[in-house]
Order: sequence, then structure tokens, then C-alpha cells
Amino acid sequence: MKKDFSLRLRNVEGHIRGIERMVEEDAYCIDVIRQIQAAQAALSKISSGILDEHLNSCVITAIRGDDPAERERVLGEIHEVFEKTNRSY
Amino acid sequence: MKKDFSLRLRNVEGHIRGIERMVEEDAYCIDVIRQIQAAQAALSKISSGILDEHLNSCVITAIRGDDPAERERVLGEIHEVFEKTNRSY
Amino acid sequence: MKKDFSLRLRNVEGHIRGIERMVEEDAYCIDVIRQIQAAQAALSKISSGILDEHLNSCVITAIRGDDPAERERVLGEIHEVFEKTNRSY
Amino acid sequence: MKKDFSLRLRNVEGHIRGIERMVEEDAYCIDVIRQIQAAQAALSKISSGILDEHLNSCVITAIRGDDPAERERVLGEIHEVFEKTNRSY
Repeated sequence: MKKDFSLRLRNVEGHIRGIERMVEEDAYCIDVIRQIQAAQAALSKISSGILDEHLNSCVITAIRGDDPAERERVLGEIHEVFEKTNRSY
Repeated sequence: MKKDFSLRLRNVEGHIRGIERMVEEDAYCIDVIRQIQAAQAALSKISSGILDEHLNSCVITAIRGDDPAERERVLGEIHEVFEKTNRSY
Repeated sequence: MKKDFSLRLRNVEGHIRGIERMVEEDAYCIDVIRQIQAAQAALSKISSGILDEHLNSCVITAIRGDDPAERERVLGEIHEVFEKTNRSY
Repeated sequence: MKKDFSLRLRNVEGHIRGIERMVEEDAYCIDVIRQIQAAQAALSKISSGILDEHLNSCVITAIRGDDPAERERVLGEIHEVFEKTNRSY
């Protein structure tokens, strides 16, 4: 799984390198914006996937564990990450 | 807490009624859009707050409970809700 | 068109009233969040529609007009509205 | 200006390369997600900047020009780009 995320990040990296070239070659602004949006969408999918893994490992361990502070920390992080994506507008 | 969310939703409801009036009275488009964005921001804060409550009640109960299917269901929902807000672009 | 936006806003208003009731009747948190997300999606479609109208009326008039300050103002607003929706994360 | 966007994209590229390393070195999931969100925020700022340039050049030229089809095309693109960022939920 780790390998998969690493690979997908490398693809986004290549994608962004391509966008740099587009900018240097004076590509049409809207085409550049579309490519940036596509790269952002790919990043969103990767972070959703990583969150999924996190929920099914660390979060379960922390919540089933005996440390209430650890539990609170882990849940607070989920909340923070959600709030950040949610805070458009 | 329930009362608080209910009240905040009522405020958003009133806000949207005000936006309806703006549209009927031919307000400037950009002003209407700004008000819609403000209403959406208020809704985002409400849903973040509700998620927070949910994490600190149902999610803890389900994960500490003995039913793996229930656990999976609850974590799947968190993932789904995150993915939905995350799926811009 | 104005009538159409007004009607769609009224539907969202009714939708939010329904969500208030859900909260008062202790509906499941995730179901409430899903309904809030649906209301936000409806609002996004309305504001996209309003922007479309705006682009095809005020923006064209301003840009074809002779007042550079007015032109700048109108383009600045488009930029502002875009930036606001774009500023997630 | 072109140089500026190119440079900022290169920074994002480096940022993503750093995130790849984090994943390979088994960094904490939430830290990875936070970095991905930061990279997305940087991309949002870049695309807002590019849109701004576009509004102040191509869009003005097209709208002041004599070709209604061209005008429509350019405005349709603004709408499309706005709708894409706006279509969260």
C-alpha cells in the first residue's frame, strides 16, 4: 500500500513538472488551470486513501487502547483534517 | 449541543430566506454569490461541529465495541464524509 | 431566470428546515452531515448559475464599456469569488 | 510573471518529492495528509494567480473583440473553471 501511495505521488510530481513546462512554453492559461485542478484531484484521492488506512490502523488502536489522552489526540486529528478540507468559502 | 446546532441551522435558514429576497429584488449578482458562499461557510462549520460530536460518541462506542462489522461501518462513514468534502476539482 | 434561482433557493430553505427537524429528532449524525452536504451542493449549483448570468451580462457590458475602473472592478470581483471557492485547504 | 508561476510550481514539485520520502520512511499518516493539503493550497494560490492574469489579458481582448463566438468561448471557460472548484460536496 505504501508503495502504491509513493508511486501515485511520483506521478503527481511528474504531472506538475509537465505543468511547469506548459507555463514556460506559454500554454493557454485555462489549459494550465485545468491541469492544476487535475493534479489537485489526484492529491485529494491520495489523501483520502491515506486517511482510510489511518482509520483502519492507528485510529482503531488508539481508541481501543487504554489511554484517553491518546484517544482524544487521534480523534482531534481526524476532526482537524476534515475541517481543513471542509473550510472552503 | 443539539439545541445549538438546531439554532445555527435556523440562522442559516433565515440567511437563505434573505438571499431569496435579494434575488427577487434584483440585487447585484456578485453580492448574491457572496451571501451564498457565507451560508455555505456557516453550513461547513455546523457539519464540522456535528462530526466532532459524532467522533466523540458513536465512533468511540463502535470501535470499543465487539462488533467488527459495526466498527467497519462507522469508519467507512467517516471516510465517505471526508471524501465528499475532499472531492473538489 | 430570476424566478428560477428564487425557487431553487426556496427549495434549499425547505431542505434546511428539514435538517433542523432531523437534529431535533436526534437523527443519526452522519445522516445529518450528508443532508448538509447535499444542501451545500445545491447552493454551489445556484451560485454557479448566477455567475454564469453575471458573466453574460454585467461583465460583458463593463468590459466593452469605456470605464477602465469599472472594468477592473468587475474583473476583480470574478477573481475574488473564484479565490473564495478555491481556498479550501 | 511567467517566471514566477514556473518557480512556484517547481517549489510544489519539490514539496511533493518530500512527501514521497515521508511515505517511504513511514511518516505518520496525518502528517502526510497535512503536507498534501499544504501542497494543494499552494496549487490553489497558483491557479488563482494564473486566472487573474488571464482575466486581465485574454478575457478583456476577447470580450472587446468583434467575434461573439470567441467571447462566448472565453466566458464559458471562466464558468467551467469556477464550477470545477465549486463542485465540492
